[in-house]
Amino acid sequence: MVMTFQLQSEFTLSADASALTQQITTFFSTLETQLAKENLSFHHVAIKGNTIQVSIESQGQTRPHNKLLQIKNAFSKHMGKEHKIGVRSITILHYTIVFEVEKPPLKPVTIPFADVTSKEKQVTLTLNNVDDEFLQKNYIDRMISRVQEKIQNQYYEGKGEFWKAIWESPEKQPVWNKDPTEEMLAKGWLQQGPTKGKWFYRPQAAAILKTMELIALEEVLKPLGFQEVIASHIVPFDIWLKTGHMEGMPGEFYYVCEPKTRDVLQWERFVDLTKITKEISSEELAKNLAIPRAGICYAQCPVIYWSLKGKTIAEESLPILIYDKTAVSGRYESGGRHGIERVDEFHRIEPVYIGTREQLLKLREDMLDRYKHVFNKIFDLEWRMAWVTPWYMQQAGKISAVSEQETGTIDFEAYMPYRGARKDAEWLEFQNLSILGDKYIKAFNIKAQKSELWSGCSGIGLERWTVAFLAQKGLDPENWPEGFQKYLKKLPSGINFL
Amino acid sequence: MVMTFQLQSEFTLSADASALTQQITTFFSTLETQLAKENLSFHHVAIKGNTIQVSIESQGQTRPHNKLLQIKNAFSKHMGKEHKIGVRSITILHYTIVFEVEKPPLKPVTIPFADVTSKEKQVTLTLNNVDDEFLQKNYIDRMISRVQEKIQNQYYEGKGEFWKAIWESPEKQPVWNKDPTEEMLAKGWLQQGPTKGKWFYRPQAAAILKTMELIALEEVLKPLGFQEVIASHIVPFDIWLKTGHMEGMPGEFYYVCEPKTRDVLQWERFVDLTKITKEISSEELAKNLAIPRAGICYAQCPVIYWSLKGKTIAEESLPILIYDKTAVSGRYESGGRHGIERVDEFHRIEPVYIGTREQLLKLREDMLDRYKHVFNKIFDLEWRMAWVTPWYMQQAGKISAVSEQETGTIDFEAYMPYRGARKDAEWLEFQNLSILGDKYIKAFNIKAQKSELWSGCSGIGLERWTVAFLAQKGLDPENWPEGFQKYLKKLPSGINFL
Repeated sequence: MVMTFQLQSEFTLSADASALTQQITTFFSTLETQLAKENLSFHHVAIKGNTIQVSIESQGQTRPHNKLLQIKNAFSKHMGKEHKIGVRSITILHYTIVFEVEKPPLKPVTIPFADVTSKEKQVTLTLNNVDDEFLQKNYIDRMISRVQEKIQNQYYEGKGEFWKAIWESPEKQPVWNKDPTEEMLAKGWLQQGPTKGKWFYRPQAAAILKTMELIALEEVLKPLGFQEVIASHIVPFDIWLKTGHMEGMPGEFYYVCEPKTRDVLQWERFVDLTKITKEISSEELAKNLAIPRAGICYAQCPVIYWSLKGKTIAEESLPILIYDKTAVSGRYESGGRHGIERVDEFHRIEPVYIGTREQLLKLREDMLDRYKHVFNKIFDLEWRMAWVTPWYMQQAGKISAVSEQETGTIDFEAYMPYRGARKDAEWLEFQNLSILGDKYIKAFNIKAQKSELWSGCSGIGLERWTVAFLAQKGLDPENWPEGFQKYLKKLPSGINFL
Repeated sequence: MVMTFQLQSEFTLSADASALTQQITTFFSTLETQLAKENLSFHHVAIKGNTIQVSIESQGQTRPHNKLLQIKNAFSKHMGKEHKIGVRSITILHYTIVFEVEKPPLKPVTIPFADVTSKEKQVTLTLNNVDDEFLQKNYIDRMISRVQEKIQNQYYEGKGEFWKAIWESPEKQPVWNKDPTEEMLAKGWLQQGPTKGKWFYRPQAAAILKTMELIALEEVLKPLGFQEVIASHIVPFDIWLKTGHMEGMPGEFYYVCEPKTRDVLQWERFVDLTKITKEISSEELAKNLAIPRAGICYAQCPVIYWSLKGKTIAEESLPILIYDKTAVSGRYESGGRHGIERVDEFHRIEPVYIGTREQLLKLREDMLDRYKHVFNKIFDLEWRMAWVTPWYMQQAGKISAVSEQETGTIDFEAYMPYRGARKDAEWLEFQNLSILGDKYIKAFNIKAQKSELWSGCSGIGLERWTVAFLAQKGLDPENWPEGFQKYLKKLPSGINFL
């Protein structure tokens, strides 16, 4: 792809340069000769008092904005020694970048800091008045990438995710076809939580959810040698910047703000107002809160990876097999909530595994065996597995239709009789298993003594296990499979209300 | 206590009343006769166009501001039928309230919506330009109470809490005198979390913490018949308004904000900026966040009480014995953090009990027996119990030096050898047990079929249990008491780093 760049910049010097016109012209001529092989030329150099206006054109790989700081340094070095003059700052007055994309934009693209126009496959970015900082922080290259990515994404919008079935259980006769959440609500096992998309599990529902946890531990994680860790459920933005979550799903987080202070005097007016009005003054509260710099756990794996940041792992500890089951997860679901299966707050065991490619491919087979054992022998479920596009490829703008067999995500889906016939109804994703290659390993700079590392994770959502099981097996423990009854045969008595 | 009130108000009428001077004067004279036995008098009534200025004085129990809406209604009723005139609105132009307090203020008191001055024990509140809404919402009475409370609190500040020892174990010889957090950090069992006052528990430390949970369940809660529930860990302000937390400790919460929307288009600029700058734009983020209306769990009991709000409990379900061990707690600790014992994020089992006075007093004995069994026989701790002033009395401004034996809080404190000698060192509060009377029962309008209800709770902090145990017994499982070894004899291997 050929890109053309036309840049008008202004160098502000430390002193008047009117007397140095010849030397400056010579400096730029010499430099141009050096840069000619990179298809870069100085179109115009004009000296005026303590400024130099420099126009640069390029058609090659060399992007003029990436040369500007280099030119600044060369100028200061060359002219500084002899003429005691240097460059104070550089401003890009006007910058036009033109490039071709594979497929033309389907609709207009916008981006901060620049105007974007297009004509067929030719896209033009126009920037005005860009300063040093902008150059140093490498914004322009990322702007070009972002425009390319946005155009590419237009072709994938609404296409749905890649999905390829790889295994399915025999059909099973469900015990009923009711919505388990509705039925548990009616029985008083469960109640809506105090805020949207949250639940309060009374003893009967809590017992089922916690039995799922126990089965996952006893039948999957302990037999495979996983060790428990406890992760914080408050995740700072810098972790999500590394994992891509921050750019992938910022509209799905629950954000967390700290108080600016605990000082009782600073909070006195807020307390007075609360006691007098019996309401919360948002305005007064806002004065005492810091801006959010963290959110509530979305998945536990980012903090688990963070815990290994910059470490070198001894070979004898590979593969690392750890899980967190303590951090509570929050996802802002807005309109998509349903029952306990699509919620804003949920409880997940997250096993994370780090090891060599061979270790992880072997582990995947072992985990699939254990999961099959649980879903076939203990739950007696009707379910299937499919390769899907990993979420991070979808949501962080890296869409690809190609799923490889070594890395990628397997979704576990259960038939939900209450939703309708097997063929028509949407099945519930109740479990997944991913091998992610070295994506997070690199992001967190995790090393092993000798080996190249890969990693993966496999979220076990207790609400999803619960609802998949109950949707097929009903609420009466008498009807539950024997394997499950070994873990839970009798529900607690709960609380009776009038 | 005698209070005097001087109020100047203005009634805005629905029409000019110049022609009705006599009728209006008669109306107020008649009313004054009725109100005379309440020591309330109309000092001055002046009619001017569509307004009436009314000055009211009172020295009795009757507070003029509480009569104003009644006068408004009487006026509209009396004059409306015959003269088609009513009161549109009332403004208190000026209001002086004078009362005596038991002890004179030690320093000036301020309050929103009024000036407060004092001379010895005599306190004067002055309000100007107060509208109808202010009257209807009953702010003025609460302002008077708040001033009284603030003056009273000045005498308790810095006095420390009420504390009275009620039981202590024999002295025990500690295994060591190191700070367990520091030593676990050195061994790599534990690491600082990604944000302030949080921790990441690697397998060894996680195993100890989770053993504490198991012991609490097996040795305390299950034998007593407690049933598990699962509470949301996101608590809306309306729950904390009812419990008093919102006015008690607003500077100690972690606040939660939802996105204004999940709509990808609304978040596009934020995502663009994040991808281009690799930083979070607080300004752009703020545009997409709603104001906080909730916070992270401070203690689990408020949500548990909320779950029973307005319910009538069947007698056969009493006493209700439930606990949550799933919600993670957050407390903004600012400068007071230390190790895993004083943290911003922690893990607590919270048993809540609701029943008759007799049931709860009996339960307290049973719980104390179980706790003693754990701390004496399983942990072999050196510890003690003391009556203390419940936090809510202290922090919600209801300070009292009197602790009753029936309701109140018992603190469990452990000797911490690393802090110094038994007599000098501050012991660690590692457990508490409260019976709270009907405070929360009333706040959430919880009823039983027949009985009068009381309630209580008993926070079991896993970090506190862990650190109390390790501070006395060390990190080597060989040195741990036999009772504890039955639960945890060998630590997991963890992860080795180079």
